Amino acid sequence: MGKPLKHVLVCTQTRPPDHPRGSCAAKGGMDVLQEFMRHFEQKQLWGRFAVTGCGCLGACGNGPSVLVYPEGVMYGGLDKDGVAAIVEEHLLGDKPVERLKVPAEVWG
Amino acid sequence: MGKPLKHVLVCTQTRPPDHPRGSCAAKGGMDVLQEFMRHFEQKQLWGRFAVTGCGCLGACGNGPSVLVYPEGVMYGGLDKDGVAAIVEEHLLGDKPVERLKVPAEVWG
Repeated sequence: MGKPLKHVLVCTQTRPPDHPRGSCAAKGGMDVLQEFMRHFEQKQLWGRFAVTGCGCLGACGNGPSVLVYPEGVMYGGLDKDGVAAIVEEHLLGDKPVERLKVPAEVWG
Repeated sequence: MGKPLKHVLVCTQTRPPDHPRGSCAAKGGMDVLQEFMRHFEQKQLWGRFAVTGCGCLGACGNGPSVLVYPEGVMYGGLDKDGVAAIVEEHLLGDKPVERLKVPAEVWG
């Protein structure tokens, strides 16, 4: 796909329903991934940017988790509005969305 | 897990056996992931570094693919020796392994 300007990693890790850590899949991680893909299609972002589903990123308590490289910014608790903000402000605007970042003690 | 110095993403994408693009899973992507984890355990790299399995990174023809951030270096065709070299030279030595990179036209 060529090296992207920014690469969005979306956790879609699954775990059993009674697992103490929960999982990003149970918190809507797959919906978050598909919502990023919808924006990528709609705004023709493929090529300049990339989005990839991935396994556990370790911030399970703040899921669904999204990590954007090369900055290494971890976002948590995302919904459709959060995805739209990351696309507009971070990917297209090159400015990380401070209000959606996980706390520094989780990903300092 | 805290923000790592470097984050290793290992493609473990699956596809049907007769799919024209092949897949990193069919080329040993899961073995590559487990080999990284073995080094992480043996050398106690967890915390300073991270390794995560992920979906398609787009360099299917050169798989199994590994992408290291924040540098954004894409490696291909990895085996156990390749994993050991990335751990020693890129993660611990902070010097990407030029001989294992995919061609610039794949990930320029």
